[in-house]
Amino acid sequence: MSKNKKVRVDAAGRFAYDGLDRVIHEKARLGIVTSLATHPQGLLFNDLKDLCSLTDGNLSRHLQILQEAGFVQIWKGFKDKRPQTLCQLTARGQQRFLEYVAVLENVVTDALSGAPASQHKRVSEGWSPA
Amino acid sequence: MSKNKKVRVDAAGRFAYDGLDRVIHEKARLGIVTSLATHPQGLLFNDLKDLCSLTDGNLSRHLQILQEAGFVQIWKGFKDKRPQTLCQLTARGQQRFLEYVAVLENVVTDALSGAPASQHKRVSEGWSPA
Repeated sequence: MSKNKKVRVDAAGRFAYDGLDRVIHEKARLGIVTSLATHPQGLLFNDLKDLCSLTDGNLSRHLQILQEAGFVQIWKGFKDKRPQTLCQLTARGQQRFLEYVAVLENVVTDALSGAPASQHKRVSEGWSPA
Repeated sequence: MSKNKKVRVDAAGRFAYDGLDRVIHEKARLGIVTSLATHPQGLLFNDLKDLCSLTDGNLSRHLQILQEAGFVQIWKGFKDKRPQTLCQLTARGQQRFLEYVAVLENVVTDALSGAPASQHKRVSEGWSPA
């Protein structure tokens, strides 16, 4: 028998999810990075905007953050004789995204190991609402 | 043959992930809610703090946001004759978390359908760095 009376099933930091890089985790940027990860040849600014349902200003702001982190490369050029902006994930961005997704898979696994909604339990006697 | 020359593989909003409730998605709160979802009987404040590697102040702040959203119930009581705080996901919080996780699974599926890191592609001729 263990001398330690308190049984800890979970270790400290078990649900800290340190690998969830905040640069990628922010909701709009998660959409942007996933779009780009599934289009390795890059996406035009306007197509990316549509795919992620973002405004010009919002997309620009998030792309700047991703560019500063070294995750996204912005290219200027012409398509059909019109000036265009092409957005592409960098190799580093792809790598960090893969690492991020691995943690996300852990979150999903943890979540699905939990009790289903129907098993919501009443707390024991002696507790009162704060 | 379609008259529409532009082939759109992805529909607008395909990567908007509207179902990623921002109350749950924030990194620290995602850890808190996943901890609580896997402990339907509730968790003591100090145990939750350890599991999520949060400070007292941070945990209190995030619990307040979750409580205001109706996702978490806070209980006061005694354990081993000492005053304690118990945190528990509400039935509504559990339901919203399950909906959130379903979207998270879509993100993971989308991400894994993308090209692996080794397939980073050079952009075509004619594009220059912005």
